[in-house]
Amino acid sequence: MKTFTIQQINDVIKGELLSNTTQLITGPEQLEQAGESQITFIGHKKYAKSWDTCKACAVIINADIELTPIDNKAIIKVKNADVAMAMVLEMFVEEGPVFDTAIHPTATIHATATIGEGCQIGAGCYIGKNVVLGKGVTLYPNVTILDETSIGAATTIWSGSVIREKCVIGAYCIIHPNATIGADGFGFRPSPDGRGLIKIPHIGNVVIGNGVEIGANSCVDRGKFSATTIGDGCKIDNLVQIGHNSKMGRCCIMAGSSGLAGSVTLGDGVIVGGGACISDHVTLGNGVQVGGQSGVINNFSDGAKVLGYPAIDSRDALKQWVILRKLVKESKSHNYS
Amino acid sequence: MKTFTIQQINDVIKGELLSNTTQLITGPEQLEQAGESQITFIGHKKYAKSWDTCKACAVIINADIELTPIDNKAIIKVKNADVAMAMVLEMFVEEGPVFDTAIHPTATIHATATIGEGCQIGAGCYIGKNVVLGKGVTLYPNVTILDETSIGAATTIWSGSVIREKCVIGAYCIIHPNATIGADGFGFRPSPDGRGLIKIPHIGNVVIGNGVEIGANSCVDRGKFSATTIGDGCKIDNLVQIGHNSKMGRCCIMAGSSGLAGSVTLGDGVIVGGGACISDHVTLGNGVQVGGQSGVINNFSDGAKVLGYPAIDSRDALKQWVILRKLVKESKSHNYS
Amino acid sequence: MKTFTIQQINDVIKGELLSNTTQLITGPEQLEQAGESQITFIGHKKYAKSWDTCKACAVIINADIELTPIDNKAIIKVKNADVAMAMVLEMFVEEGPVFDTAIHPTATIHATATIGEGCQIGAGCYIGKNVVLGKGVTLYPNVTILDETSIGAATTIWSGSVIREKCVIGAYCIIHPNATIGADGFGFRPSPDGRGLIKIPHIGNVVIGNGVEIGANSCVDRGKFSATTIGDGCKIDNLVQIGHNSKMGRCCIMAGSSGLAGSVTLGDGVIVGGGACISDHVTLGNGVQVGGQSGVINNFSDGAKVLGYPAIDSRDALKQWVILRKLVKESKSHNYS
Repeated sequence: MKTFTIQQINDVIKGELLSNTTQLITGPEQLEQAGESQITFIGHKKYAKSWDTCKACAVIINADIELTPIDNKAIIKVKNADVAMAMVLEMFVEEGPVFDTAIHPTATIHATATIGEGCQIGAGCYIGKNVVLGKGVTLYPNVTILDETSIGAATTIWSGSVIREKCVIGAYCIIHPNATIGADGFGFRPSPDGRGLIKIPHIGNVVIGNGVEIGANSCVDRGKFSATTIGDGCKIDNLVQIGHNSKMGRCCIMAGSSGLAGSVTLGDGVIVGGGACISDHVTLGNGVQVGGQSGVINNFSDGAKVLGYPAIDSRDALKQWVILRKLVKESKSHNYS
Repeated sequence: MKTFTIQQINDVIKGELLSNTTQLITGPEQLEQAGESQITFIGHKKYAKSWDTCKACAVIINADIELTPIDNKAIIKVKNADVAMAMVLEMFVEEGPVFDTAIHPTATIHATATIGEGCQIGAGCYIGKNVVLGKGVTLYPNVTILDETSIGAATTIWSGSVIREKCVIGAYCIIHPNATIGADGFGFRPSPDGRGLIKIPHIGNVVIGNGVEIGANSCVDRGKFSATTIGDGCKIDNLVQIGHNSKMGRCCIMAGSSGLAGSVTLGDGVIVGGGACISDHVTLGNGVQVGGQSGVINNFSDGAKVLGYPAIDSRDALKQWVILRKLVKESKSHNYS
Repeated sequence: MKTFTIQQINDVIKGELLSNTTQLITGPEQLEQAGESQITFIGHKKYAKSWDTCKACAVIINADIELTPIDNKAIIKVKNADVAMAMVLEMFVEEGPVFDTAIHPTATIHATATIGEGCQIGAGCYIGKNVVLGKGVTLYPNVTILDETSIGAATTIWSGSVIREKCVIGAYCIIHPNATIGADGFGFRPSPDGRGLIKIPHIGNVVIGNGVEIGANSCVDRGKFSATTIGDGCKIDNLVQIGHNSKMGRCCIMAGSSGLAGSVTLGDGVIVGGGACISDHVTLGNGVQVGGQSGVINNFSDGAKVLGYPAIDSRDALKQWVILRKLVKESKSHNYS
């Protein structure tokens, strides 16, 4: 277990140390749950009063918060307590699961695959024909990477994930457990007799930029032709569906259980709330924000904030809520007055 | 195949045997589909007339149902036919998939792992450093359990599931196939130049109580600090997302495709309908019931029944439906009268 | 890489070759992205003007579209450009991931399993007791098939998928990566003391017809008794949940992230939009179409088109949208006029 002095922590977060502690700090914790050797944080005035009963030996606070000093308890004032806490979390990160040998003997690696320097490949992994792993790629046990796919340097792929053939994944990505990259897109055409469905082949692939995260049990389908593309720095949560030929710009965020149908285009910095779905062929401009569980069936331009099903300007959606509540209230007074 | 006489079945369900059959019973089946050697059940009067054409040799009925006896067909009257049928199902359960050897030679088990008495570990499983499996744990083929995780006695983990490092899973749990426990929570902070996103480390873990079920392809993320916790007896269906630092009380039920965003707190006995989402930092009291596909963005106290997006008191949500239908009806009469 | 002359392509799609090209064609591509050696297509007049700036050497157009011929660029007129393009895609399909040996030495195959002629079984697969694989079944690496399950001829199962015991999967099916077939249905009964939940055993199985696709990370639960059934030709997208004892007719389509709760019955040709949920015990007739993200809580008969939550006739749902927008507009004029 890592421990730090309060000075070591302040050297990293570069705040103002208002009072001190001699306690060695064993980790960060939430205000109500912190123990005597832990450091906590207060990001809003309304929580300031909880400090008196908090057991933590140290607290990081926003600049606009005032706390009464307590003997041998440290207070560090910073511009943004959330960012400082994220930096403290980084100090306490421990090594991930160990690899006793860089390449486990039970991994199956095709003779034509190229394995970069410093790669770690866990038990039961499968690496197909002509796969290329960049330097320092980490594959936890039971990952499957099929033929002709390339994985960029320092990318980590967690157990159970499947990357199908001919996909391209950038550097410094994280693919979380049981994700599926490159499955066939969902497309069918009526059979000539009109009584069945014939599969449309998907001969494209998936191209993922650098610094991307794909959440656990999420899916990114391959393109019908050309690629489904995910731009640098995109962060995709768990159980998210990205349909074939969708194109995401840089640094988009998709929260859990959301989805893009086929051929959706997102600009840069688009944020999609949890459970929201974007219909096929919709285009959303840079910085569009889609509220949770919304259903977007129309295009929106840069900076739009939309909500509801069908998604409309968030302010109008909120007005709909108010109006519906008022109508219910009126109907009650009609019934009972 | 197991078979039972009607007496053996009634010894278990302890009902009133109104008429008898000499037929050996080979299994339970639904009313319309039951064959001559099967037992069926009728839980509501409206289905009673189907008994005359049903092929089953035996039926379990609720106390308030009257059936005309048929030659060599058994009728058992009980207080609750649903509960009795569940007990009959238990009689007919057969052994699950076999393990020819308790620990398959292709499983990879770290030298430091502790494997309890009577564990069964299937082909291709990976058990990491310092993992502890209690007595009688069953891991079907291709399960991955990473370092420092502990699994309680008699817990079953189905194929394809991934339990990441440092998690704690209780006794008598069932983790269904392709579930992911302990993936990183979804948290990022803006990079100093404001042009990217930096990952917030998640140094917490997941703590799951006893008697919990986690559905197929469901995800429970690890905490940012401290734990994401799931109380004893919780039952979670397939494709459910549990975000980082959420806390579920005892015996909560989450139906398929539902989700908790980050830092959600549920009391005991909360029921979340299929496809419903609970927003981050929401607290729901004991026994709260959330309707299917609802979106809960506010706290609700003990016993609330809520519905809709945003979720409100169910009765008000139903009134909104009625009002909207009435408005549509009025608009039609305006247009066409 | 495959290449074809324009004549070879027209021999397959049997259109009218209006102008010709000597360029060898390397693949199909979308209008805006096509390069000089590629063939593209125009299915609607509104895109016809893009042909002038398109780099492709050939285009397939619908019969009602007129294009100015360009030197050494081919134009093929067909009845339906979408269908023709699907046929072209089929021409360019390449071989999938290779199997160096038909049955990989790291696969674990129970001595009692029956493996049909021409099967390919990848590294790390597990095949349980009495499993039967028909002729020409392909299992990519790390697939798990548990005891007594049978898989029909020419079916393909992608990596990470888990098929539990006693299930029946037809011929010519495709199971995409990380799908779960045959997990326990989600059913519990109160414990005798009323303080907990007791699992209801699910002794049924899953029966899947011929020509079915199950999407990546999708789940089909086993029946409580008898089977959860999926009819011939059904196509199920990614992250879809099919609850226990649901019954789907022939050629139904379920788009991504949709779901059927328990004991749902679908006729033939039902189409369920992305993110939509069907409540338990609901019956939908042949050809019913459910709009995206709808919640269906009532039965609908053949041919109904429904939308919204709760789902109603689509035309009425659209009227609700119009009325809500009008109310918001009126409230604005009240406030500001």
